[in-house]
Amino acid sequence: MSAFKIVILPGDGIGPEVAGAGRLALETVGDVFGHDFTFEEKMIGGIAIDTVDDPYPADTDAACLAADAVLLGAVGGPKWDLKPKRPEQGLLAVRKSMGLFANLRPMDVAPSQAFRSPLKEDIVSGADMLIVRELTGGLYFGKRTRTETTATDECLYTVEEVERVARVAFEAARKRRNKVTSVDKANVIETSRLWRETVNKLHAAEYSDVELEHALVDSMAMHLVTRPKDFDVILTENMFGDILSDLASVLPGSIGLLGSASLGSTGKGLYEPIHGSAPDIAGKDLANPMGTLKSVSMMLRHSLNLSKEADTLDAAIEAVIKAGILTRDLGGTASGSQVSKAVADQIRIQANVAA
Amino acid sequence: MSAFKIVILPGDGIGPEVAGAGRLALETVGDVFGHDFTFEEKMIGGIAIDTVDDPYPADTDAACLAADAVLLGAVGGPKWDLKPKRPEQGLLAVRKSMGLFANLRPMDVAPSQAFRSPLKEDIVSGADMLIVRELTGGLYFGKRTRTETTATDECLYTVEEVERVARVAFEAARKRRNKVTSVDKANVIETSRLWRETVNKLHAAEYSDVELEHALVDSMAMHLVTRPKDFDVILTENMFGDILSDLASVLPGSIGLLGSASLGSTGKGLYEPIHGSAPDIAGKDLANPMGTLKSVSMMLRHSLNLSKEADTLDAAIEAVIKAGILTRDLGGTASGSQVSKAVADQIRIQANVAA
Ligand SMILES: [Mg+2]
Ligand SMILES: [Mg+2]
Repeated sequence: MSAFKIVILPGDGIGPEVAGAGRLALETVGDVFGHDFTFEEKMIGGIAIDTVDDPYPADTDAACLAADAVLLGAVGGPKWDLKPKRPEQGLLAVRKSMGLFANLRPMDVAPSQAFRSPLKEDIVSGADMLIVRELTGGLYFGKRTRTETTATDECLYTVEEVERVARVAFEAARKRRNKVTSVDKANVIETSRLWRETVNKLHAAEYSDVELEHALVDSMAMHLVTRPKDFDVILTENMFGDILSDLASVLPGSIGLLGSASLGSTGKGLYEPIHGSAPDIAGKDLANPMGTLKSVSMMLRHSLNLSKEADTLDAAIEAVIKAGILTRDLGGTASGSQVSKAVADQIRIQANVAA
Repeated sequence: MSAFKIVILPGDGIGPEVAGAGRLALETVGDVFGHDFTFEEKMIGGIAIDTVDDPYPADTDAACLAADAVLLGAVGGPKWDLKPKRPEQGLLAVRKSMGLFANLRPMDVAPSQAFRSPLKEDIVSGADMLIVRELTGGLYFGKRTRTETTATDECLYTVEEVERVARVAFEAARKRRNKVTSVDKANVIETSRLWRETVNKLHAAEYSDVELEHALVDSMAMHLVTRPKDFDVILTENMFGDILSDLASVLPGSIGLLGSASLGSTGKGLYEPIHGSAPDIAGKDLANPMGTLKSVSMMLRHSLNLSKEADTLDAAIEAVIKAGILTRDLGGTASGSQVSKAVADQIRIQANVAA
């Protein structure tokens, strides 16, 4: 039996509902597999601005830094659009404080769900990839200049920044199908040549058991649409990762099934669904908890090293989808709490099956 | 009757075959509509390296600068992979000498061809867009630095560079469905804020009759896959345009039907299919001339201001596709010259229909 300290940041809109579903899944996993999860709920985003005038209060920060992993619901909403402090600042602050430099975005299309995809079913059915995006460097965080007639942005990468995120990708590949596709534009830009050299060196020195290939960003955009099944882990710098992970996110035909993780060098991480706070349906028990449950599965696997438990949760989620217990956004009639409860029940069933 | 000087650069591999098809189409258009096209064939790329040891000989340059428009077949091939001079240098040289700063990449999916697309037919059938990409600035041409442990690339844009390519997009929109979607990342980078401000100012001052919307590059990548029919002209800077035009190019399911243009400020331009030199099938009359014929249609429209003639050629191409006169790459059995001849015949038929 292991003990884990989990901080939950429910946030705004549908955040509390989906975070609650995540907590129930963790409690059930703890119960079934004999782990001791302790939970602390803290404020972030709009609710924190409203309550203590700070999107990322100091006690939230202290709790996150002391936790084994953090689960976030969602932040933001039109309510805070015209306010000086923005809910999204809470998200940037927690990422920065926890030193999170790798964003993990899995995308998979179960055969039973391929009909939802904008792609033809035979192309996308069974696709299962993980995009590992560098989160703190590159053009988005570079020096900028501006005059009346010109503007510049600088893209900067260091060997160390590339190495640490590449390490995350290689480690993730070892837990998956053992293949990394590293994306760059090394035929044109210098930061991409540094990127490719660094990835190659690290691969040769420490990860030669993992299959490594390189792809140019423009080719990769094409591959995601024409042969998404050919990829396992996709490693990429910040801006290319922004574009490619958003492109990949539309392939399942619904973002309601997608989770994400942001990791630092300690293995601790922040887990959240990729959907937003959807204030229009908040409090109505309509929100789809599946993206959060997939995020919890990632937490089990990447921060808590509980891969059997993660497999069980994945199987439970898949079973509930197959049984057609789906929220409105997926064409079903179930409430969010019905889906959440069904997954918890399936965790118990799948654990017995697996045992 | 108008007179036009056309330079043809057949180039390497299948280049001469497809360029020949382009010439036949122009000759037929001239014959039917009473225009006087004169043709000059010049060397570029690998053949020019082999013959005069220069991928872009001076007399080719002089002819291109004196021409009303230039039609290029294709350059390059493995034969020159290990040579010091590269065929592709010819392409960069002609673009630079002619001052070509706007790359136009149309993408359309006729309903009869939607079955080829990786996208579901209802999503893509009838899509018809034109991507206008800035071709000489941004990260790909910026200052670079490199040390053992760091690398940088600079992205620079000036108001003048943005204005001149935006003008091409607005003018093209007026000849199409009168809508421009300008792509940037203005929520994060400075060059994108300059881009958006400049596009907005030019729109207000000179093109307020054209509908203008803005999209972030990551969102645009998603839109291309989920709702490609919603776009007419897409305007974007160099690197975003590289990624998005390649992404768009896979939507028809074959690159054999796609042409392109590169334009400067005088209206003169370079026209070429987007496919490569395909040396493996060169000289066998298997190459699909349709990408070149679409490029010729763009030449008629954008450089020669012959829109009725362009419409006729487009209709001729569509009629030949509908009749199933297709090369192997499109699942047909016709030779390249059979397709070329069929389009020429259809130009005569369509011109009479239209008259
Ligand atoms: Mg994004
Ligand atoms: Mg490209």
